[in-house]
Amino acid sequence: MDLMSIKDPSFLKGLNKEQLEELSSDIRRFLIETLSKTGGHIGPNLGVVELTIALHKCFDSPKDKIIWDVGHQSYVHKILTGRAGQFDTLRQYQGLCGFPKMSESEHDVWETGHSSTSLSAAMGMAIARDVKKESNYVIPVIGDGALTGGMALEALNHIGHEQKDMIVVLNDNEMSIAPNVGALHNVLGRLRTAGKYKWAKEELDYLLKKIPAVGGKLAATAEKVKDSLKYMLVSGIFFEELGFTYLGPVDGHDYDALFENLAYAKKTKGPVLLHVITKKGKGYSPAEHDKIGNWHGTGQYKIDTGDFIKPVNTPPSWSTLVSETVRKIARKDERIVAITPAMPVGSKLEGFASEFPDRMFDVGIAEQHAATMAAGLATQKMKPFLAIYSTFLQRAYDQVLHDISRQNLNVFIGVDRAGLVGADGETHQGVFDIAFLRNLPNMVLMMPKDENEGQHMVNTALKYDDGPITLRFPRGNGYGVPMDQELKQIPIGSWEVLKTGKDAVILTFGTTIPMALEAANRLEKQGISVQVVNARFIKPMDEAMLHDIFRAHLPVLTIEEAVLQGGFGSAVLEFAHDHGYQHAFIDRLGVPDRFIEHGSVKELLKEIGLTPDNIVVKIKSLMPKKQKRA
Amino acid sequence: MDLMSIKDPSFLKGLNKEQLEELSSDIRRFLIETLSKTGGHIGPNLGVVELTIALHKCFDSPKDKIIWDVGHQSYVHKILTGRAGQFDTLRQYQGLCGFPKMSESEHDVWETGHSSTSLSAAMGMAIARDVKKESNYVIPVIGDGALTGGMALEALNHIGHEQKDMIVVLNDNEMSIAPNVGALHNVLGRLRTAGKYKWAKEELDYLLKKIPAVGGKLAATAEKVKDSLKYMLVSGIFFEELGFTYLGPVDGHDYDALFENLAYAKKTKGPVLLHVITKKGKGYSPAEHDKIGNWHGTGQYKIDTGDFIKPVNTPPSWSTLVSETVRKIARKDERIVAITPAMPVGSKLEGFASEFPDRMFDVGIAEQHAATMAAGLATQKMKPFLAIYSTFLQRAYDQVLHDISRQNLNVFIGVDRAGLVGADGETHQGVFDIAFLRNLPNMVLMMPKDENEGQHMVNTALKYDDGPITLRFPRGNGYGVPMDQELKQIPIGSWEVLKTGKDAVILTFGTTIPMALEAANRLEKQGISVQVVNARFIKPMDEAMLHDIFRAHLPVLTIEEAVLQGGFGSAVLEFAHDHGYQHAFIDRLGVPDRFIEHGSVKELLKEIGLTPDNIVVKIKSLMPKKQKRA
Repeated sequence: MDLMSIKDPSFLKGLNKEQLEELSSDIRRFLIETLSKTGGHIGPNLGVVELTIALHKCFDSPKDKIIWDVGHQSYVHKILTGRAGQFDTLRQYQGLCGFPKMSESEHDVWETGHSSTSLSAAMGMAIARDVKKESNYVIPVIGDGALTGGMALEALNHIGHEQKDMIVVLNDNEMSIAPNVGALHNVLGRLRTAGKYKWAKEELDYLLKKIPAVGGKLAATAEKVKDSLKYMLVSGIFFEELGFTYLGPVDGHDYDALFENLAYAKKTKGPVLLHVITKKGKGYSPAEHDKIGNWHGTGQYKIDTGDFIKPVNTPPSWSTLVSETVRKIARKDERIVAITPAMPVGSKLEGFASEFPDRMFDVGIAEQHAATMAAGLATQKMKPFLAIYSTFLQRAYDQVLHDISRQNLNVFIGVDRAGLVGADGETHQGVFDIAFLRNLPNMVLMMPKDENEGQHMVNTALKYDDGPITLRFPRGNGYGVPMDQELKQIPIGSWEVLKTGKDAVILTFGTTIPMALEAANRLEKQGISVQVVNARFIKPMDEAMLHDIFRAHLPVLTIEEAVLQGGFGSAVLEFAHDHGYQHAFIDRLGVPDRFIEHGSVKELLKEIGLTPDNIVVKIKSLMPKKQKRA
Repeated sequence: MDLMSIKDPSFLKGLNKEQLEELSSDIRRFLIETLSKTGGHIGPNLGVVELTIALHKCFDSPKDKIIWDVGHQSYVHKILTGRAGQFDTLRQYQGLCGFPKMSESEHDVWETGHSSTSLSAAMGMAIARDVKKESNYVIPVIGDGALTGGMALEALNHIGHEQKDMIVVLNDNEMSIAPNVGALHNVLGRLRTAGKYKWAKEELDYLLKKIPAVGGKLAATAEKVKDSLKYMLVSGIFFEELGFTYLGPVDGHDYDALFENLAYAKKTKGPVLLHVITKKGKGYSPAEHDKIGNWHGTGQYKIDTGDFIKPVNTPPSWSTLVSETVRKIARKDERIVAITPAMPVGSKLEGFASEFPDRMFDVGIAEQHAATMAAGLATQKMKPFLAIYSTFLQRAYDQVLHDISRQNLNVFIGVDRAGLVGADGETHQGVFDIAFLRNLPNMVLMMPKDENEGQHMVNTALKYDDGPITLRFPRGNGYGVPMDQELKQIPIGSWEVLKTGKDAVILTFGTTIPMALEAANRLEKQGISVQVVNARFIKPMDEAMLHDIFRAHLPVLTIEEAVLQGGFGSAVLEFAHDHGYQHAFIDRLGVPDRFIEHGSVKELLKEIGLTPDNIVVKIKSLMPKKQKRA
């Protein structure tokens, strides 16, 4: 059928099974084709085609609340709610968001991006329904990976206790982003393959041997005991213990099974957990046979071969640079242990894992545990490397504060995807970390200008023994600069003058250095001589250099690809006023006080005024004031 | 025995059961007596006397790592590790800390304060042991309340998966701080009272009726089947499912049972969960019969009567003021729902709970879930009041950012215990919230000057419909000011001049207003006229007033009982420089860049220079510069 003509999901009510199967094929073809051009989360969406259609057929959205955990699997939902025509703009500037977005559709009742929030949101909606004495279904759809996030477990505990009516759809594809870890994963594995449950079997065998053989009738009863016992042991007792009615496991690609179980779930009082087994990448062979998560989210690809279309000869990614440098140093330093919360692929830790399997821990989606486990390691004179995305470190703020910084433990936090991340948009921008890490006592916070300095900073961090140290680095690739063979240590709190100048100073670090240099070069031609400083330590700052700058009465512009409120620029303001440089001319560029949506990093930088043009304007606006005063 | 003579726990090895019982009595008597004078966490510590002694007798601390979750139950541990002599200084300035503290003893291998961190820490220590090929036991001791914290559940999941050797002692006293909630609590309840497990019984009755009666032998076997099945169902299958060997439940006041089970646990490979049942307040009748948590942590009390010694005729607490005002407004506004993460008593929500039982949700120790559930409620046009301590809101930073602020939802966050909290010390100081909330777009953040303004701010927050709004208020009691009968709304972002002045301006809010006024009055007598502004909105600020102040070239001193890095003072600096007031003389007073330990709030304020004296000095130091420039 013509997907572009879909306005809302009501048309599904009239479709028979054959038509639904046809629709599923059409949607799969559409996704494979469109995403080959735009990129996106192909694997997760191919896996939930039937499930999404079944939910929209059985329920009445938006009256009934379908909540997509994480939300990268909401493309089919977007198609069914009238947005097929916008897929050519997916994850592009001012285009269709890759996650649920209230402003796009009334069917997006909850926005996501970070995982494990759906159950708490659903609980809020269920309480609201009951307080208002309304009647509707609440249906959070959560993956097996997201289920291990602490807040999802907190919510399970509360929902099971309160016994609110709710249908939790557990979308179990045996893989979150990377292959899943954790005991809960094992629980689910046993549920999937009920007959293999060893403990129940052994116990049963023992018991059954004790029952005397008294003919066919008893044997049949014994079998019934056996079946019943096995049933109890394998059929979701974990969830039943938590107060849920467990249904499943159901084949998530079988409409009959889905309809039957959803109908049963609708009739059941109290919370239901419907365990649905789906296949990530279903219907597209390269994605279906992906074992490590390469097809979770992709860029462009060739449909027929499944080859990713990537720019050739790009320098290595920042994640690779950092993780491989850690790996190199770990060969000589046995204290080093790597920890990732479910991002071994994204953080490029596969090499470390294969070389040091006993010193690598993927804890699953569990940022809080990851951070405090690192602290525990550090108390034992180990040197943990916590690899974590900036946006996900937000989940571990208290653990970094209360467990790592307060105890002043030697944890090396590698903050990946710091700064604007582009297509993933506002839920994933790594722009808050400076503001929330800078207020922590004992914390060292740095960002390298290029990958050569990056490797030295990794070395610096791993040699540092005075407390927590954080290296933030951007998404994407390095510049391809020449790399020193020997690793150095960079003095903590030392900045570097990249370009001298006598009229003004730019203080910046990391990704915004090139635009600062470009602006300075342009200004040079206009007779304004600007010093550009690589302020690579955000905390502690280079106080000697700051004193020199302020004593020289130079106007200062700070630039950061991070929020301005409480950020690096504010640290410079604080320094100036704390040290009596009340006359200092300081201006700041950075991310303004609003959430920044998706788009290319370049487009987003332009939107918020982080451009050489704007730097030139800002510096000039600082200059006359200086002259006026002088 | 003489507790003062204890140097370390090694003396325990030689004691027989009778001597241990005597020691237990001595410790209880000591605790009841000492804490009647100092206050402290009497209930939790009376409950773990035998457990602590048994752990120190069976294990070899500090080689074996005993980790106290939350840590307020570590008093007995402190006595056994040579600190009895310091108990008269408990929780006092520069005295014994109320929580484990590495600087006090090598036996304190992990510092706590916030709950649910022990399992992650233990996992780190177990990994370190195995990587270093060392041999020691790791024994986290966690309460049933702390177990529902998301990070503890994340850790359980990971520990069960990795199968590291570890003995988790679950100290189950059926009550965390307040009576426990959550499905896990129900699981534990079933474990405690094994015979009552309804489902197993019903299923069994059904099955057993089907087994034909064939005489005594079968009947006995059927009984065996029944017992075995019951055993499996009731004996910790929840934990067994997660990969733990479950032992217990054990009477935590019975030395024989404790020794037997600890010995068995030591021999068991992989992670063990030892379920110990203790009685909070054991051995002191008023504490033992406490049902709501009044004896969890106390001030001074009379030993014979169990009466709390409280100052008479104090004004109501801030928590009471806020919660009772919410309750009053909730009578007319049915959208209002109250949420607390395990603090119904501390947050004084008992009145609201009894009047609106269907609109009150204690979610247990689960700050992340609490915040996002509030967001879920707000999407349905409800008005949730999230009552949470400043220090615990740190746990929900990402949820406030990603779910509440990003979606700009109408959640009213009541941040209790904001500022210095005193005796609980560095783990509990509520000094980071301004820095970590101010960087969130859409957030309104305010603090009242007194309880009358406080009630109007509660009303303002509950009427506000433009997004999240936060009211921070201090620990302790109000001033007893006259209260308006009619509730008003305070214009968002409006400040108030409390005292006019022409030479300088103090911008401050909340608890630091009285010291600012006192300093201004003293300065007045010295001929310096200082304007004092109640900067009650920390975000957004009163921009019109700020423009007036800076246009008048008045020097500005900001004062906040919160961290200086990225705090309110920094917001004022940002404003001045963003608006071209580069000549502004601004200085800031607040909490410096280090963790502040325990002591009375007054002592701590003095330590960090938040005193009228210091304000006078600061204002004077700003004055000459102004004159110099003019």
